[in-house]
Amino acid sequence: MEIDVTFTARDLAIRPKEGRVVVIIDVVRASTTISQGIASGCTEFIPVQTVSEARRRAGEVPVGRRLLGGERGGLRPQGFDLGNSPLDYSADRVAGKTIVFTTTNGTMAIKAALGAKEVVVGALVNLETVADYLLAVGRDVTLAGAGRESRPVLDDALCAGAIAQRVLEKAQAKASPTDSALMAIHLARGYHARFREALALSASGMALKGVGLDRDLDFCAQVDALSVLPRLVDGRITG
Amino acid sequence: MEIDVTFTARDLAIRPKEGRVVVIIDVVRASTTISQGIASGCTEFIPVQTVSEARRRAGEVPVGRRLLGGERGGLRPQGFDLGNSPLDYSADRVAGKTIVFTTTNGTMAIKAALGAKEVVVGALVNLETVADYLLAVGRDVTLAGAGRESRPVLDDALCAGAIAQRVLEKAQAKASPTDSALMAIHLARGYHARFREALALSASGMALKGVGLDRDLDFCAQVDALSVLPRLVDGRITG
Repeated sequence: MEIDVTFTARDLAIRPKEGRVVVIIDVVRASTTISQGIASGCTEFIPVQTVSEARRRAGEVPVGRRLLGGERGGLRPQGFDLGNSPLDYSADRVAGKTIVFTTTNGTMAIKAALGAKEVVVGALVNLETVADYLLAVGRDVTLAGAGRESRPVLDDALCAGAIAQRVLEKAQAKASPTDSALMAIHLARGYHARFREALALSASGMALKGVGLDRDLDFCAQVDALSVLPRLVDGRITG
Repeated sequence: MEIDVTFTARDLAIRPKEGRVVVIIDVVRASTTISQGIASGCTEFIPVQTVSEARRRAGEVPVGRRLLGGERGGLRPQGFDLGNSPLDYSADRVAGKTIVFTTTNGTMAIKAALGAKEVVVGALVNLETVADYLLAVGRDVTLAGAGRESRPVLDDALCAGAIAQRVLEKAQAKASPTDSALMAIHLARGYHARFREALALSASGMALKGVGLDRDLDFCAQVDALSVLPRLVDGRITG
């Protein structure tokens, strides 16, 4: 069982994915928000690339069952029901709903995962659940940080490292990390118990602060708060 | 002064380089070997992409003054005078010579640096000299790990982190690291005083061991052994 880490959607796009499990990691905030939506009982997320595609796809879902969610520039696009804040995705808003969802970096990473055997969504909030799933499946793994505008970001790399570390601790000799996985693991060790601080330092956290939404970082930093495993199958993410 | 780190030649190719200093880092072994060649008094390195281009370019240099150096699959190509081992580049072999040079990953990174204001070559052996130069110039910096086959490698990321750390210690508030620079710095801290061990663990080190050349790692791990600053100007690397 090889554990690899990629730091941007571009990196993921060029790596071999056949037969592997890919974990899409966009801690601040798409992965955290999807995990929270699933935990709150939404039926599914339909991830799409663009705002106009989101509007079109939403039209295919009966009115009472659909919600439009996501962000551009960190903010809720005009006419959308929900932004990309995990705090928006409470059970009273999303239970039983189909959420057509578009974000800048997270949905690019989902597209780049095409060709993988399995695709799941990982964040700090569901770290342990993801690690246990990877161990149970036993396949080669790519922990895929979404990054930001084709650059690595601290929050995703840190989370990838924390998941890799957890899997290695449990798998012992049965799992081997690549060089980039070792890099991520050292990052997670470096910020041991200071994950909230790392999220605030990251380019993602700084951008969020720029639009006044940095309170979301408290939610994103809650390690193991949710026991959900969002899985992408046939273009839909379900629990 | 921004300090950024890229982990592969591909990463470097897509980043903005205008006005920046790019430090090409291929610790195992091209950067180390170039530093050693310059320290041993060679006239210049002419980096080229392919073995056939190397043979052709060597033909343009008078016979007594030219050497062909480099590797494919870690080994000296047929008819080449020197491999890519720093141990080959002693003063008695290279002093006063023009070395036409091709390696698999290092020369790809050099090509990807096109467009930068200045391009220098950094390794563990000349870490302090590179850091002092970057501080003196005061421009934004990209510490560019060559990687291996489009993947990050531990040795280059570690060296980038060690250079970034050294610059930040000396520059204090005047330099700011990007997220990928922070990742590299944590890696360097994680392997503090165990750089030789990290080189052996890296994909580059493992590949070298595979062809029986891992004794070169001792040389590559010698922090600050050489006080040289190889600089690339108009397709030639000089001291």
